Amino acid sequence: MSKYHLLKQRVLEANLQLPKYGLVTFTWGNVSEFDRDNGVIAIKPSGVEYSVMTADDIVVVDLEGHVIEGKLNPSSDTATHLELYKSFPEIGGIVHTHSRSATIWAQAGIDIPALGTTHADYFYGDIPCTRKLSSREIADQYEKNTGLVIIEEFTQRHIDPMAVPSVIVIGHAPFSWGKNAKDAVHNAVVLEEVSAMALATRSLNSDIKIQPELSDKHYLRKHGEHAYYGQQ
Amino acid sequence: MSKYHLLKQRVLEANLQLPKYGLVTFTWGNVSEFDRDNGVIAIKPSGVEYSVMTADDIVVVDLEGHVIEGKLNPSSDTATHLELYKSFPEIGGIVHTHSRSATIWAQAGIDIPALGTTHADYFYGDIPCTRKLSSREIADQYEKNTGLVIIEEFTQRHIDPMAVPSVIVIGHAPFSWGKNAKDAVHNAVVLEEVSAMALATRSLNSDIKIQPELSDKHYLRKHGEHAYYGQQ
Amino acid sequence: MSKYHLLKQRVLEANLQLPKYGLVTFTWGNVSEFDRDNGVIAIKPSGVEYSVMTADDIVVVDLEGHVIEGKLNPSSDTATHLELYKSFPEIGGIVHTHSRSATIWAQAGIDIPALGTTHADYFYGDIPCTRKLSSREIADQYEKNTGLVIIEEFTQRHIDPMAVPSVIVIGHAPFSWGKNAKDAVHNAVVLEEVSAMALATRSLNSDIKIQPELSDKHYLRKHGEHAYYGQQ
Amino acid sequence: MSKYHLLKQRVLEANLQLPKYGLVTFTWGNVSEFDRDNGVIAIKPSGVEYSVMTADDIVVVDLEGHVIEGKLNPSSDTATHLELYKSFPEIGGIVHTHSRSATIWAQAGIDIPALGTTHADYFYGDIPCTRKLSSREIADQYEKNTGLVIIEEFTQRHIDPMAVPSVIVIGHAPFSWGKNAKDAVHNAVVLEEVSAMALATRSLNSDIKIQPELSDKHYLRKHGEHAYYGQQ
Repeated sequence: MSKYHLLKQRVLEANLQLPKYGLVTFTWGNVSEFDRDNGVIAIKPSGVEYSVMTADDIVVVDLEGHVIEGKLNPSSDTATHLELYKSFPEIGGIVHTHSRSATIWAQAGIDIPALGTTHADYFYGDIPCTRKLSSREIADQYEKNTGLVIIEEFTQRHIDPMAVPSVIVIGHAPFSWGKNAKDAVHNAVVLEEVSAMALATRSLNSDIKIQPELSDKHYLRKHGEHAYYGQQ
Repeated sequence: MSKYHLLKQRVLEANLQLPKYGLVTFTWGNVSEFDRDNGVIAIKPSGVEYSVMTADDIVVVDLEGHVIEGKLNPSSDTATHLELYKSFPEIGGIVHTHSRSATIWAQAGIDIPALGTTHADYFYGDIPCTRKLSSREIADQYEKNTGLVIIEEFTQRHIDPMAVPSVIVIGHAPFSWGKNAKDAVHNAVVLEEVSAMALATRSLNSDIKIQPELSDKHYLRKHGEHAYYGQQ
Repeated sequence: MSKYHLLKQRVLEANLQLPKYGLVTFTWGNVSEFDRDNGVIAIKPSGVEYSVMTADDIVVVDLEGHVIEGKLNPSSDTATHLELYKSFPEIGGIVHTHSRSATIWAQAGIDIPALGTTHADYFYGDIPCTRKLSSREIADQYEKNTGLVIIEEFTQRHIDPMAVPSVIVIGHAPFSWGKNAKDAVHNAVVLEEVSAMALATRSLNSDIKIQPELSDKHYLRKHGEHAYYGQQ
Repeated sequence: MSKYHLLKQRVLEANLQLPKYGLVTFTWGNVSEFDRDNGVIAIKPSGVEYSVMTADDIVVVDLEGHVIEGKLNPSSDTATHLELYKSFPEIGGIVHTHSRSATIWAQAGIDIPALGTTHADYFYGDIPCTRKLSSREIADQYEKNTGLVIIEEFTQRHIDPMAVPSVIVIGHAPFSWGKNAKDAVHNAVVLEEVSAMALATRSLNSDIKIQPELSDKHYLRKHGEHAYYGQQ
């Protein structure tokens, strides 16, 4: 049995959560997990239907994207995942979907504003929308450049990727991440819900923002050393 | 067997109605019931998934929030529930969710307007949105102060909490209540439906309000001594 | 066995279609069928849950609303149904729901405009919204007056109730009808779909109306002597 | 056994995908497939419910619409399908639905704009809305003229029907196509999703368009000789 069997099993299960939570149509989504000890990433194969996917279909690649194990092509978005893992040292799982409401904000080219505690429980501030890629960045190494433009956005705005574990790529769709594949999917579900809420909130009240103290309170009661939510 | 076994069983069942009616994502919601004879409240534990929750996980606390029975931490919103039970003498069950449409109105910071008989059958007038909590109210005893700000809103506006059994907390989400846990969940379902209807109604006709006589008629044909709806 | 057994069975089945098609929350809806030969109407009992309803719970009343058969109270909207059956001689079934999108138009107090062939296949022109009831009409015999105000709207606007088999009552919700209970439910499903489509169509293009020739064509290819849709 | 047995089976299965993907209410939709070798088209019968439909109910017609095999009337939209097959030589399957979001754009009479990569992965540019049919085109051979007006739109705007495999007919609803019936249904599902996304995107940002280089990139990474998506 492959030394990556459990890793591939976790990545399979995380991928299967995407249709369960209504985040994907057809094969439009992919989840990966990074095994930092072994320096490998397990990721969904490209264009394979969820209903027939098995753990053996999951592809294992190294940090340069070379296939270590697996007979199928890895997701066409693999190069984006690799850049994020290389630059965001604390993340262990990444999800890409075209979930409807988050994609709407990406298409509109507008940051998803923090408007309530549902958002603040998971995201510490607005969820950034990237800048446009240049013609050159699109023409050559598009998927790698998508990763780089995400990293640029977090760097230039001084956003901690663990405090805001999602981004929307302009004209495209969201990426979410977390400490592993399962956690990344969890954040992708939350992203879709807060995106849907924000759409209608802004149509009722176009200027509203969350009260900063309330954002702090909700984020910090779930995260960090003074957290008191849950059973920790 | 615990003397609170039936109470905990009812609270479990009421909590399980939340995912059934689509009012919660993950663990975002909690239901409690007040046993006024024994002076105790049974409430959902914090951060436990609905799919694995049993009656034994339900936590029993006294009116000061001390755990009387149960091994898990009670919901982080317990202090809000306690304040409401202490100030609203007729209520026996409370629900908190982040159900989408009601939360949208909370985020927008706007009372949910009474626009039709669906609303009037359950809510006698607009559903109030609270004022913002002060920085101090957020920093210290936030959950207790959330309860106090709800009570302040009903007191200052002279609203009977049994005639309007829901509130939205600004920037946050709704609370609903009723004569017991099951009734509170029923009202939470109605709140979500009337919130969704009100959103689209206002987008079609921004000034509309329900005719006051129609609101009276529908509320009073279901409530009070002259009610004639149902099998009473 | 009751001479109305088959009638009650049909009415039960038509009522059970309401939750199946997502037209009702809890018990908010009722279907009746008129047995013109025997001069009786079978209708849902008031406030009984769909999941436990049996054919024996269906109430048979005469045209004055007196209970002929059944131990439960008939729907509180029975008097509205009776007026419609008395004035619209071709209808044999009536449905009342608070289905979301149709209710939104009722709350907004705006006729549901004919905007496409989906509408035209079933409704020959706009679906009327009634005038407000007067304080007196609400205070006394409200449900009967609701029927009378519907009839007034069709009479004054010269609308054939078989060509436009639905109405929205201002501030309240829709009624639909048809040649029997099943057909009435079918029209209620269509009403909800065209209501939802019309909401978003008007938000994209606030002035649009269907081309009159297209409305004629679609209605007449499904109805009347020159119909050629289906297997007739 | 009929020589068209497998063709009819494929057409049945493609039709049954319509309710599965939520694209139809009742019988409002039809799928056909063209067997170019034998010069025949298999299509759904008119007005038959999906839940009882069998392969034997599928009707086989020739290019003039004469029934070759089958006891039922073919879909009333058969003449539209025939015109499209005759003019678009690469298509092998056609779907017509009244799916909600695409129909909303048709009713609004506005092209569905290309706003993101979800659209660009399948449609190379905006999805055209036809001109209105004239009174004469509606009165006589309406369904055939619906096909002709679609073809006119693609011809006059120089759109390749394989690069933009859907159209919306003004005041009516969408048609989609593909290399066979299954592929056409796939495109109909995508059309509905991108239609829903475009509706809300435009409400957030009324001027937005996709970056042309991004549209090129996404379409061409899935189509044509340089495609690298999937397992080709």
